[in-house]
Amino acid sequence: MTSAVRKDDPLLSGAGPWMYRFMEVLYPYCRSITGEGTRETLRRVASHVPIEIHEVPSGTQAFDWTVPQEWNIRDAYIKNRAGERVVDFKKSNLHVLNYSTPFRGMVPLETLREHLYTLPDKPDWIPYRTSYYKENWGFCASPRKADSLRDKEYEICIDADLKDGNLTYGEYLVQGSTDQEVLLSCHICHPSLCNDNLSGIALTAWIARHLREMKLRYSYRFLFLPGTIGAIVWLSRNENIVANIRHGLVVACVGDPGNPTYKKSRRGNAEIDRAVLLALQTRGSDYSVREFTPYGYDERQYCSPGFDLPIGSLTRTPHGGYPEYHTSADNLDLVRPENLADSLSIYLDVINILESNSTYVSLCQKCEPQLGKRGLYGALGGHPDAGKVELALLWVLNMSDGKNSLLDIGERSGLTFRCLREAADLLVENGLLTKLPSGGAG
Amino acid sequence: MTSAVRKDDPLLSGAGPWMYRFMEVLYPYCRSITGEGTRETLRRVASHVPIEIHEVPSGTQAFDWTVPQEWNIRDAYIKNRAGERVVDFKKSNLHVLNYSTPFRGMVPLETLREHLYTLPDKPDWIPYRTSYYKENWGFCASPRKADSLRDKEYEICIDADLKDGNLTYGEYLVQGSTDQEVLLSCHICHPSLCNDNLSGIALTAWIARHLREMKLRYSYRFLFLPGTIGAIVWLSRNENIVANIRHGLVVACVGDPGNPTYKKSRRGNAEIDRAVLLALQTRGSDYSVREFTPYGYDERQYCSPGFDLPIGSLTRTPHGGYPEYHTSADNLDLVRPENLADSLSIYLDVINILESNSTYVSLCQKCEPQLGKRGLYGALGGHPDAGKVELALLWVLNMSDGKNSLLDIGERSGLTFRCLREAADLLVENGLLTKLPSGGAG
Amino acid sequence: MTSAVRKDDPLLSGAGPWMYRFMEVLYPYCRSITGEGTRETLRRVASHVPIEIHEVPSGTQAFDWTVPQEWNIRDAYIKNRAGERVVDFKKSNLHVLNYSTPFRGMVPLETLREHLYTLPDKPDWIPYRTSYYKENWGFCASPRKADSLRDKEYEICIDADLKDGNLTYGEYLVQGSTDQEVLLSCHICHPSLCNDNLSGIALTAWIARHLREMKLRYSYRFLFLPGTIGAIVWLSRNENIVANIRHGLVVACVGDPGNPTYKKSRRGNAEIDRAVLLALQTRGSDYSVREFTPYGYDERQYCSPGFDLPIGSLTRTPHGGYPEYHTSADNLDLVRPENLADSLSIYLDVINILESNSTYVSLCQKCEPQLGKRGLYGALGGHPDAGKVELALLWVLNMSDGKNSLLDIGERSGLTFRCLREAADLLVENGLLTKLPSGGAG
Repeated sequence: MTSAVRKDDPLLSGAGPWMYRFMEVLYPYCRSITGEGTRETLRRVASHVPIEIHEVPSGTQAFDWTVPQEWNIRDAYIKNRAGERVVDFKKSNLHVLNYSTPFRGMVPLETLREHLYTLPDKPDWIPYRTSYYKENWGFCASPRKADSLRDKEYEICIDADLKDGNLTYGEYLVQGSTDQEVLLSCHICHPSLCNDNLSGIALTAWIARHLREMKLRYSYRFLFLPGTIGAIVWLSRNENIVANIRHGLVVACVGDPGNPTYKKSRRGNAEIDRAVLLALQTRGSDYSVREFTPYGYDERQYCSPGFDLPIGSLTRTPHGGYPEYHTSADNLDLVRPENLADSLSIYLDVINILESNSTYVSLCQKCEPQLGKRGLYGALGGHPDAGKVELALLWVLNMSDGKNSLLDIGERSGLTFRCLREAADLLVENGLLTKLPSGGAG
Repeated sequence: MTSAVRKDDPLLSGAGPWMYRFMEVLYPYCRSITGEGTRETLRRVASHVPIEIHEVPSGTQAFDWTVPQEWNIRDAYIKNRAGERVVDFKKSNLHVLNYSTPFRGMVPLETLREHLYTLPDKPDWIPYRTSYYKENWGFCASPRKADSLRDKEYEICIDADLKDGNLTYGEYLVQGSTDQEVLLSCHICHPSLCNDNLSGIALTAWIARHLREMKLRYSYRFLFLPGTIGAIVWLSRNENIVANIRHGLVVACVGDPGNPTYKKSRRGNAEIDRAVLLALQTRGSDYSVREFTPYGYDERQYCSPGFDLPIGSLTRTPHGGYPEYHTSADNLDLVRPENLADSLSIYLDVINILESNSTYVSLCQKCEPQLGKRGLYGALGGHPDAGKVELALLWVLNMSDGKNSLLDIGERSGLTFRCLREAADLLVENGLLTKLPSGGAG
Repeated sequence: MTSAVRKDDPLLSGAGPWMYRFMEVLYPYCRSITGEGTRETLRRVASHVPIEIHEVPSGTQAFDWTVPQEWNIRDAYIKNRAGERVVDFKKSNLHVLNYSTPFRGMVPLETLREHLYTLPDKPDWIPYRTSYYKENWGFCASPRKADSLRDKEYEICIDADLKDGNLTYGEYLVQGSTDQEVLLSCHICHPSLCNDNLSGIALTAWIARHLREMKLRYSYRFLFLPGTIGAIVWLSRNENIVANIRHGLVVACVGDPGNPTYKKSRRGNAEIDRAVLLALQTRGSDYSVREFTPYGYDERQYCSPGFDLPIGSLTRTPHGGYPEYHTSADNLDLVRPENLADSLSIYLDVINILESNSTYVSLCQKCEPQLGKRGLYGALGGHPDAGKVELALLWVLNMSDGKNSLLDIGERSGLTFRCLREAADLLVENGLLTKLPSGGAG
């Protein structure tokens, strides 16, 4: 058991390829906000992480919402006069309007066109479209495919069910030394789309799988749920747990080649916001920060005013920000193992900050202690620059007046949290610093 | 009666040409801080707006000031040896030092030069100069004219009176549903100068003329007064009213082609400051913002520490910021109907914000309400962007926890106030939102 | 006696050359944190300023530190086989590792190299290195010199003492009208290095020498002490005085040609920080500002959390920021009289702000007073710009509501403190303003 997550930890070793391979396994399933594809996805997660799979019956009320009927699809196609499947669900599950009602029959081209969704400026991409809450049937296709339809009428088949069933989600709690929780939540409702959000599922699964091996301050709750309705259902069933949530992140779009992007919680200056910013600021590569908006992923629900949880979203290119978003081009080519691993390393940095952030008090408040006589300071003087460790020692000593946590010191010094934490450990060892019992979490 | 000012309102229709024509009417009068030119200007205003015209006798004390004698001028000229009027008040009332004492006689060129004001780097422009509080006679002329004076002596005539009389100002109150007031104040003391400040007079008159047709939350007080002494006199006579003033703007320089400029109130973050900034920020064109300084127009008096009213100044190119400022080039060519209309539209936006700003409470605090089932959200999912209305609905719902007014939400979301107001109305109609009774004015 | 420091004051006249000449006098001494060179330096200061010279015995405890043995050196050299002094302390006292233990004997080149410090990328510069707290012997030399050593062995002589004695520092108090103190502290421990810190010694001496001729609000304490250990010793012996310190500056590196640089106190927004920033902002030339870091000069001790004094550091190019730093190139060529004088003028501006900062109350809170009738305002109106004095009068009147000090007004107006102070004096003379008795110090 290690006491803190480290970059050179087994936690990172092999993580990129593992996450990528897990995405390859999950890619073919036709997921939606309910149904077998989603259920099978959770079973695959369960083969690595002991998640509990919850089933919530259609018709269940969840605040202003109602769990819809369960949707399952077996096959769908558009056949031309020659009997060829010109649009075929078996080639891409994006071809069917997600939650399409069942339909069979001959349809004039004109009518078909009203039910056929395309992205006019992307000749070869199939868009991803849904109709969860309005009954409709439909297909999605590339403009090239749509333009090639010339027959007068086509045979349509959408071999699907839309009937009472369940909404399914997965949940897993790693118990830490306190009941205070960190929530990691990912949406599992998208069909064959990789960055959004097989990448989030894979990264969350990896963390869940490995965090239980750690000695933890916080308990970590992992949610794998359909977007919007899943988060709303979970919140409506777990209001008692919500009070324990101290920090959280919505995990999505973590595999593309773009820079990391953090979208702040509604509060804007919660410890999670500060921890992520410190991790991003001190890693020495580009990143973006966005203020909270009530649009995006499930932070919309977690940050609704009645909950206002300190939950942000840490992605690479965010929601809607890349051309492949919600199209067939968000495939296994868009995401790379190294991007997944890089995203993971930031998540681990953040977890390390949350786990290790504490407020210390210097036992030598008046003037600096003499670090040299303790072997903590270079013996040879006169060099223009202090070493990084020496600087971290000085920062921790100077700021540890009982009012500043290591996170505060990180923000003021610009030093990495890891470096400050090591300095604090060294100072504690040398009897120059003591940790406040409250732990300074927040 | 409409309940809110709208851009496509009759209020804006025809406003530019009307304001411009009104300036043409007012242009010839020789205004000053007292006298018939000013009085006649107010009578012209009164033909459109039922202002009350106040007369305050010379010698009246107003705080540290005394109402001066009334100045009236009939004619003035400099005649050369040939008897020609080489400088003639009848050609431009700027030719006479404003508040010049009466004078008649032959004067050597040398003496004349001491009483002749020019702008050396503007060969053809006549400067506007005043000597309200120090007795003096004088002329203003272009450098070209001044240089052409070669006679040994000239015949001078300033056919003016400076004797006990009155200071005159106009005032008009549109009563709203409360006694809380919005003050719009413009100075009327400049002679034939257009942007400064016939533009302000015309715009204020237009608003005054039309606002009474509206259902209003606030009462609106319109002041047409001579700069400095007029504002001081008004404040000294109306200290009881001052307590009711919630917001205000000094109206000047609203017709030139420059970008809108807002000079903040002394408080710097009053609701008027925030309302004007939101209006400017969300209209999508360039603008400037200046911090308060105790120099400029009558905000100097309204924002003196003993009053410290939340009154800013919304101009185009501000006080002293354009070369034509206080010269004969500030004429009917400098100002354009379209600039006046553009300025008016910002004033109306600001009034709309003040009138409509309220704090609402979402009736669905936990998670988003399901907008789709109420027809408030696109049925087809998967599009990368929410529509503007949908986004406004989400912002209003998310922020309406009872602590944020629509103005707060505007500042945080970057959406126009109008869009947020429409969203709030829709949500109220749909039973998802309720307005707090206090109205959130401030 | 004058009541405020002024730029055209005798205080500045001749200051640059005087400070430079004083540096020339002090340059040859081999200073260290203890010893005769330092003591002699203090005696030279004492010939101009009546400092008290304190001797603190070796072994004295000062918080976590112990006063070390006293180090004195008479001679040191490296002699080659031919008997020539190839490295000679008499040519530069930087050649000896400061605080080197005594040593005599023949040493193989290989061993010598382990005790020979160079700056590889500076062929002709001798580095300055110290070993105060770890017993060691050593030399410093240019790479060119070090590379030229080819003999198999060398005769080494370090004719030094390291034995019980004293740490020496100088202190001088100019009593003002209150016991509240301003601390100016400079380190005196560097051998023949000019910018760091003979410049600081010379500037501090000049101020100390002249300030006693002034009528002062604050008492001024001047400390001339060895870096780190000297400041720690002083703090440990004067905890009762520390409570009186209201403002302070660490004086160093004030003679090089770089721009002024201010390093803020740990508090970051203390009056000293604001005063220095105002002085720098309003002088119209480039400068830098740095946030506090717990590395640098003796602000490290003054700003340790147990003291947290409002003490910043005002330098030109700061600590470690110029290539000559801590090398033989920090010599009399690097510093110039005009740079010293420029630095002094900023120090005097800051002292002027501290001395003169007060909160005033306008006696004319409602509207502006009529400045014109008091001769405080140009009689001719219409000019686009107010003069600087008029603007300062308006700012002081508008902001003097009892809540804003002149320093506050300076920050808001961007006008120089001197200009505002003159305006305040004029207004007081004219019965329009009164100074609050508390003096507004802070």
